[in-house]
Amino acid sequence: MRVFNFSSGPAVLPEAVLTQAAEDMLDWQGTGTGVMEMSHRGSAFSRIIEMARADLADLLGLPSDYAILFLQGGATQQFSQLPMNRLKKRGLAQYVVTGAWSAKALEAAGKVAPLTGGRVEAVAGDEESDFSDLPFFTDEAFDPEADYVHLCTNETIHGVEMDEAHLPNTQDAPLVADMSSHILSRPMDIRRYAMVYAGAQKNIGPSGLTVLIVRKDWLEETPPDWLPDLLSYQVQARHDSMLNTPPTFAIYVAGLVFQWLKAQGGVAAMERVNIEKAALLYACIDQSGGFYRNGVASEARSRMNVPFLLADPALIPLFLEHARSAGLIELKGHKSVGGLRASLYNALPIEAVRVLVDFMTHFAKTRA
Amino acid sequence: MRVFNFSSGPAVLPEAVLTQAAEDMLDWQGTGTGVMEMSHRGSAFSRIIEMARADLADLLGLPSDYAILFLQGGATQQFSQLPMNRLKKRGLAQYVVTGAWSAKALEAAGKVAPLTGGRVEAVAGDEESDFSDLPFFTDEAFDPEADYVHLCTNETIHGVEMDEAHLPNTQDAPLVADMSSHILSRPMDIRRYAMVYAGAQKNIGPSGLTVLIVRKDWLEETPPDWLPDLLSYQVQARHDSMLNTPPTFAIYVAGLVFQWLKAQGGVAAMERVNIEKAALLYACIDQSGGFYRNGVASEARSRMNVPFLLADPALIPLFLEHARSAGLIELKGHKSVGGLRASLYNALPIEAVRVLVDFMTHFAKTRA
Repeated sequence: MRVFNFSSGPAVLPEAVLTQAAEDMLDWQGTGTGVMEMSHRGSAFSRIIEMARADLADLLGLPSDYAILFLQGGATQQFSQLPMNRLKKRGLAQYVVTGAWSAKALEAAGKVAPLTGGRVEAVAGDEESDFSDLPFFTDEAFDPEADYVHLCTNETIHGVEMDEAHLPNTQDAPLVADMSSHILSRPMDIRRYAMVYAGAQKNIGPSGLTVLIVRKDWLEETPPDWLPDLLSYQVQARHDSMLNTPPTFAIYVAGLVFQWLKAQGGVAAMERVNIEKAALLYACIDQSGGFYRNGVASEARSRMNVPFLLADPALIPLFLEHARSAGLIELKGHKSVGGLRASLYNALPIEAVRVLVDFMTHFAKTRA
Repeated sequence: MRVFNFSSGPAVLPEAVLTQAAEDMLDWQGTGTGVMEMSHRGSAFSRIIEMARADLADLLGLPSDYAILFLQGGATQQFSQLPMNRLKKRGLAQYVVTGAWSAKALEAAGKVAPLTGGRVEAVAGDEESDFSDLPFFTDEAFDPEADYVHLCTNETIHGVEMDEAHLPNTQDAPLVADMSSHILSRPMDIRRYAMVYAGAQKNIGPSGLTVLIVRKDWLEETPPDWLPDLLSYQVQARHDSMLNTPPTFAIYVAGLVFQWLKAQGGVAAMERVNIEKAALLYACIDQSGGFYRNGVASEARSRMNVPFLLADPALIPLFLEHARSAGLIELKGHKSVGGLRASLYNALPIEAVRVLVDFMTHFAKTRA
């Protein structure tokens, strides 16, 4: 029997996708071979990757001056790969720090900055911040000459989400966003960004795949000589993400997820459900009389990742044990912030949130 | 109906492995969730990765002073990652060039060498070589002070395999081998190497996973400050390959392959079948009266990848078309060398080679 899986990633996938993947395992569409066994340069896999790319572009409403790359290494690899490709000699990259992941991106960029001869700086967020609100920044904080300004538009650990209305005005400085944990959960205007990237293992598919969406003018500039081809956006784009063998099966599963999303009505339809799911859970927390608590300011609360605390932290092991018995798993909070966390990605059905909220209400009543 | 798949990679997988993966897809061992959906830090996936590691160590007879890492980016990433980690300032890395892949490794290392302040050089093989034999080298060609000597012990494109008897004596210079296309196909003494790596998509599992086996003393030295943590062997080892989310499903499938290999009797048993498979195909080629031709010197012929030419290259499209009708696919040679190629990895049953040889004999008779 399937349980309700609130994991922050790798995360629940649509049952229809998993069923299809199981059915195709030994023989994809009469080819006599499974997707995992196909040459990445053969016609069958070419169809798979092209369809995945086209469906993703369609879901995002992607303008034709953007390219989609399928890479490896997760978002973490992009933390280094981005400055290696785009931080210029004597250049500057600015990082808006809204939680643990944007802080990691800044740190990784700082490590490779000396290679490029550029530098990086934080424009908002500091080590004392508890990341319970969107950062306060004025437009003056941004250098219009910056090589780029980096954001993490949904912070998986701190449960902080930045919607488009809160994006900074950086004038000519191009925006880059790590959207790993909320891509495809709501309509987004990709034109606001020069580049967007996402580790697949939350809203897209299996781990081991990174989706990169990049404006084509960024691919025209040749990166430094010392940059390995595998890490060069320009070279990867020129080879259609096939400089070497890509993670073929992960791309195929992502493609099934894209088809599933289209069948659900696309990202606008997903957003309606995601708003409802998040509203149910935050209401349960806020109406618990302090038994549960989420400290994030309401306009910054993530629809995807909902961290919350118990007034009595000693009850956490019991909560997790009873939740597991009720078929609700992966509710433990990230070790750096403690407490509990429920991730409500696209593939998590609203039924799961209803069961969780009923469980939480009952647990609060019996333990308060 | 399944076909016989001679792809050089991604390549055929054991049917038993695919069947198990399909069965587990929605619910792994009663957890109520599929492997793709599991948190990489949870207890279920921990069991999966630890068992994969233990089974691989067992299959290789790995001494306890070696570590196994599960990384991303394929062998190609290692072409850059190795010198970034191990090529010292004013250091030297020597590359034995036996075919296309060792040549690529040398080229990629040359690109990043300026970052480290070291240099790289070829000890054997040059651009005029047709890579039809193992390179001639004397022990004097090797610098005992070299940071490492790199080899590709099986060249997938040129069909050249180096067995342990042909390994150079490099004195104190540590050996590193790209074993992507023949790891686990025969017993190997890992003690001969400081490091061995392999892209998974040939003899191990799905693409998107790289297996790295490294002597632990190599993990004690701290790499340069500018090296991204994700690319540091030391940091990856300290985090047990979990610095960020690893390619969990690929690791799980690799683990199923390791269990399948153990059930077959391990690498010694695989070697016996692999010798027989290769002998069948080479005999067919050599006894075709020149209709088919493999130009590799007999002591250098790969058991895994058998490239061959037709005396009349104009027959190739017909050969491929008839082969496909006979249920034999992916026999086209690599574009850089032309002709045909059959890859005979562990998961390819000997029955496939018998059918191929019968087909080739019949084709030669009717077209000679």
